[in-house]
Amino acid sequence: MASSVQDVFMLFGDSITQGGWGPGLNGMGQRLSHVYARKLDVLNRGYSGYNTEWAIPVFEQCFAKRTDGHAPKVQVLTIWFGANDACIKPSPQHVPLSKFVSNMKHLVQMVKSPTSAYYSPTTRIILITPPPVDTYQRRADLESRNPPIALDRLFATTEAYAQAVKDVAAEENVAVVDVWGTLWEAVGKEEKLLNKFLIDGLHLNEAGYQVVYDELIKTIAQMHPEVHYDNLGPIFPPWAQIDWDAPSNSLYIKAV
Amino acid sequence: MASSVQDVFMLFGDSITQGGWGPGLNGMGQRLSHVYARKLDVLNRGYSGYNTEWAIPVFEQCFAKRTDGHAPKVQVLTIWFGANDACIKPSPQHVPLSKFVSNMKHLVQMVKSPTSAYYSPTTRIILITPPPVDTYQRRADLESRNPPIALDRLFATTEAYAQAVKDVAAEENVAVVDVWGTLWEAVGKEEKLLNKFLIDGLHLNEAGYQVVYDELIKTIAQMHPEVHYDNLGPIFPPWAQIDWDAPSNSLYIKAV
Repeated sequence: MASSVQDVFMLFGDSITQGGWGPGLNGMGQRLSHVYARKLDVLNRGYSGYNTEWAIPVFEQCFAKRTDGHAPKVQVLTIWFGANDACIKPSPQHVPLSKFVSNMKHLVQMVKSPTSAYYSPTTRIILITPPPVDTYQRRADLESRNPPIALDRLFATTEAYAQAVKDVAAEENVAVVDVWGTLWEAVGKEEKLLNKFLIDGLHLNEAGYQVVYDELIKTIAQMHPEVHYDNLGPIFPPWAQIDWDAPSNSLYIKAV
Repeated sequence: MASSVQDVFMLFGDSITQGGWGPGLNGMGQRLSHVYARKLDVLNRGYSGYNTEWAIPVFEQCFAKRTDGHAPKVQVLTIWFGANDACIKPSPQHVPLSKFVSNMKHLVQMVKSPTSAYYSPTTRIILITPPPVDTYQRRADLESRNPPIALDRLFATTEAYAQAVKDVAAEENVAVVDVWGTLWEAVGKEEKLLNKFLIDGLHLNEAGYQVVYDELIKTIAQMHPEVHYDNLGPIFPPWAQIDWDAPSNSLYIKAV
């Protein structure tokens, strides 16, 4: 069995989180896994297609209750939803905006509220806004399928859900990485230029993940510098620092 | 805290394991993280510069004792050492061949022996042989440093340690991925051609990791097909299989 020798950096979200280790993408998950090697375990808790309604039961099982003293601590938790909640009716993924807001608050409160069974005051929560939708690219992708699918997301709808994420972050006093706003500014507010950052009008390409990673690391450096990878030492010492004549002196960091 | 909702694929080794999520490499760790997403957590337990002598105390802390009922199960465990043990004297990383053999057996027996505190009969152990050393490339790399460093590894020495890994695997009846032999065959047994697969005569480049990943997946398919990623379902259902009218029916896979 795997002992909880390292604390955790948990990435909770939908397909844009799940796909962050994909080949050729240099995605967010992969890059975090690399820079946090020997420091924190970066756990993929991304669920393709999921909205916040379905995410809550999953979170109740992925995040340990405070009574579970054996579980590794989650030092950083990113919550990245909205891309699917913002689907338009009649998509089964659609979650009304007001319900999306209450679900996001609920997820944050599960961790932040002292009365929650999942209360974890040392977990640093970072919300992430969904990327802007390029409906030109998205429509072309969906129409090329067999059978063709009607456009399922609108630019302005996802914008509203992104704004809601920022509002929840402000209200709950947690950090936020505004992927929507950063990408929108980067293309000079020209929807047709978003394909610089998106594969299919919805999911990020390598350039898109690069922006997300950079913004996330910047946010950690500003808001939670103590868990920036540069400020965490490796759990086990670099090999040159081992006491070579008596390795046990430096290699036991917990009782066995 | 992070609940043990997924079992584990643990990669235990030295820098060649640790670096498997590196940028632009499409390394073994990254690719396993991708294909096992929502199935197994791929944990990086790679320790740059470590030999088996230093690895044993680390393993005693990374691998849970059988009495720790809360820890997630390790379904697959790769053990990949030898590249540093095979350093030549007076390197502090050098471990004599006979000691390397007994250390490797010890690591395997910690998991396989019914009398071991770490006994885990359901863990599938896969040993991996170190890559062949390109001493031309390695020497050039070391001589280019400031101050220059003398050649620290010999081709034939690492070959002997790779053979020892194969011998231990046979004796202990566990699977082995012969990276040494596969790369050596791939270059037509021409040491100077190994730079096709190595960055610096020692560490793998993208082509090298591609070979390791392919061989590892082939080994899993042949020896332990039940844990091949194609034969494991996601822990939580694909979104299209959720009971949309009553999501709780399909989303609770354990008691909360």
